[in-house]
Amino acid sequence: MRASTPRLLVVGSVALDTIATPAERRANVLGGSAAYACAAAAHFTATAMVGVVGRDFPASGRALFRRLGIDLRGLQTAEGRTFRWSGEYFANMNERRTLSTELNVFADFRPELPPDGRRAPYVFLGNIAPALQSHVLDQMARRPRFVMADTMDLWIRTAREELRRLIARVDLLTLNESEARELSSAASLARAARALLRLGPRFVLVKRGEYGSVLFANGATVRVVPACLLERVRDPTGAGDTFAGGLMGWIAHTGRTTIDGLVEAMVRGTALASFAVESFGVQRLATLRRSEIHRRVRELRRMAQLS
Amino acid sequence: MRASTPRLLVVGSVALDTIATPAERRANVLGGSAAYACAAAAHFTATAMVGVVGRDFPASGRALFRRLGIDLRGLQTAEGRTFRWSGEYFANMNERRTLSTELNVFADFRPELPPDGRRAPYVFLGNIAPALQSHVLDQMARRPRFVMADTMDLWIRTAREELRRLIARVDLLTLNESEARELSSAASLARAARALLRLGPRFVLVKRGEYGSVLFANGATVRVVPACLLERVRDPTGAGDTFAGGLMGWIAHTGRTTIDGLVEAMVRGTALASFAVESFGVQRLATLRRSEIHRRVRELRRMAQLS
Repeated sequence: MRASTPRLLVVGSVALDTIATPAERRANVLGGSAAYACAAAAHFTATAMVGVVGRDFPASGRALFRRLGIDLRGLQTAEGRTFRWSGEYFANMNERRTLSTELNVFADFRPELPPDGRRAPYVFLGNIAPALQSHVLDQMARRPRFVMADTMDLWIRTAREELRRLIARVDLLTLNESEARELSSAASLARAARALLRLGPRFVLVKRGEYGSVLFANGATVRVVPACLLERVRDPTGAGDTFAGGLMGWIAHTGRTTIDGLVEAMVRGTALASFAVESFGVQRLATLRRSEIHRRVRELRRMAQLS
Repeated sequence: MRASTPRLLVVGSVALDTIATPAERRANVLGGSAAYACAAAAHFTATAMVGVVGRDFPASGRALFRRLGIDLRGLQTAEGRTFRWSGEYFANMNERRTLSTELNVFADFRPELPPDGRRAPYVFLGNIAPALQSHVLDQMARRPRFVMADTMDLWIRTAREELRRLIARVDLLTLNESEARELSSAASLARAARALLRLGPRFVLVKRGEYGSVLFANGATVRVVPACLLERVRDPTGAGDTFAGGLMGWIAHTGRTTIDGLVEAMVRGTALASFAVESFGVQRLATLRRSEIHRRVRELRRMAQLS
C-alpha cells in the first residue's frame, strides 16, 4: 500500500536496539515505538510513519518497512546516528533494566507531517515527549476521527502539565498499570482509570503485559482482554507498541470506535503482540501471514470464553 | 442444609487472624482455608468442614458456619488455642508479609472424617501438609468423583515427594504462578502447567491474584478467567480459598467436570472471591445473597466478552 492519503498516521521512535535475554544477545535490532506500531498496523490499513533516523540507518530497515507497504515520506533522515537503546531482561522476561540510551538524532526530533498525512483520519501518538505529541495534533488539517496516545513514567515525572494538556485532546490514552496509578495517585486500577477519564479522553486502556489489557470507558464500562499464553517468549521488546499499532490499524480498517469495536481491535493488537515477542525486533511481524493472525485471534477468543 | 451425606467435603485450616492493611487493623478475624472455602461452597451445595479449633474458638464463629448450613461434625475441638496467623499488607494490597504464625492445635491436627463424610462425591483438600491431604483421601469409602487440591511454596520446599504422590491422586491441582514455576522448574507458565499435568492430574488451575486464573487441561486446552476489577479491596486474605471453595461448590452442585463445566465453576469462584475481599474475614460471604452472586457473574461475563 502506498495510498496517497494514509488512513493511519503513526509517530514515534525508530531505533537500533541491543537486547540481552537470559538466552541470547542481539545488537542493532530494528525497533522503536513507530517501527513496531507501523509493522503491526500495516497488516490492516494504509499506514504512514513519522519519525527520524540517522545516516547510519541500514537500507535493509527501510526495505523492510517498504515491503510492509508503510508510507515513509514522514520518516526524516538527519545528520548523525540513529537512536540507540540497550537493555537486559531478567529471568522472568517481565522485568528489564536499561543499560544505555543514546538519543542521537532523536534528541532534536521535531515531527513534521507530509501534506496528505495531515488529513489522516486516525492517529497513533507513540511514546515521545507530550509536547511533540501535541505538535503533531497541531499540524492536522482537521480534527482526526480518532486519536490514541501512549505515554510513560518519564513524562509523568518530567512533563506532567504538557501531558495533561495532551490527554485532554485524545480519544484514547494508553499506559501501563503502575503509570496509571502514578499519574492519578489512586490506589486501585479502577479508581485510577476513572480519574484519568476525568482528564478528557473517552477511553483509558491499561496495559498489563503478560496479563493482557483493560479498557475503561465513561459510564463504568470495563472490558478485559487476556494476553496469549506463550510457550516461549524470545524478546518482549516492543510488545506494547505492537499491541497499540495493531489496535489502531484495526480501528482504521473498520472505522468502529464503539466499545465493542475497540474490544475487537484489542483482540487484534493482542494477537499481533503475541507474534512480535516470538522474535527479536520486528522480524516476525514482517513475515506474518493473514491466516496466522486469524488463527491466533480464534485461539484467543476460545481461551477467553466464559461459557 | 444439614444433609446426612454432604456433597462436598472441605479440609483445611480454621484460624483467628490478625490482619493489618494500610487503612485498617483487625484482630481475631475468623479465617483459615477451610473457613473461607466452606463459606463460599455452602452457597451452592451441601458442604462439610473437616478441621480443628481450640477451646478458645468463639461460639459466634461456629454460629456463623451453622447459619451458612455448613456441616460441622468433622470440626474437632482440641485442648489448646486455635491456629493464629498475623500478617500485614503493603500499599498495593497484593504483597504481604507474615508477622507471626502460631500453629497451636493445628500442630497436631490429623483430619478424621465423619462416617458419611467418607462417601462425599466431591472433595476439596485445602492447603495443609500433603501427607494430611493424602490421609483424607485414604479414608474415603470410595474414589470421589472429583478431588481438587491446593498447595503452597512451603510444601514444595519441605515435602516435595509427598506432594508429588498426592498430586498423582487428584483431578485438579491448584497453585499460584510462582509456585507452578517452582514445582516444575519451567520458565513459562504454559510449560510449567504441562509439566505439572504430567504428574497425573487432569487439570492444573493457576491462580494469578488480581489478574484472575488460568485452567490448563490435557491436549493443550487453556482457558482464562479474569478477576473482577474492584474499586476497593479491604482485605485480600482468603481470596484464593474462597475462589477454590466457590468453584468446588459449583461443581458439586452441577456435577459437570468437563472443561466448560470447570470454566463455569471458575466464574462462580471468581465472583465469590470478589465479595470476600470487600470485608475482613468471612463476614461478607456470610451475608451474601443469591441475587448478588448472579449480578456479579453477569458483570464478569460482560467484562470478559471479546465481541
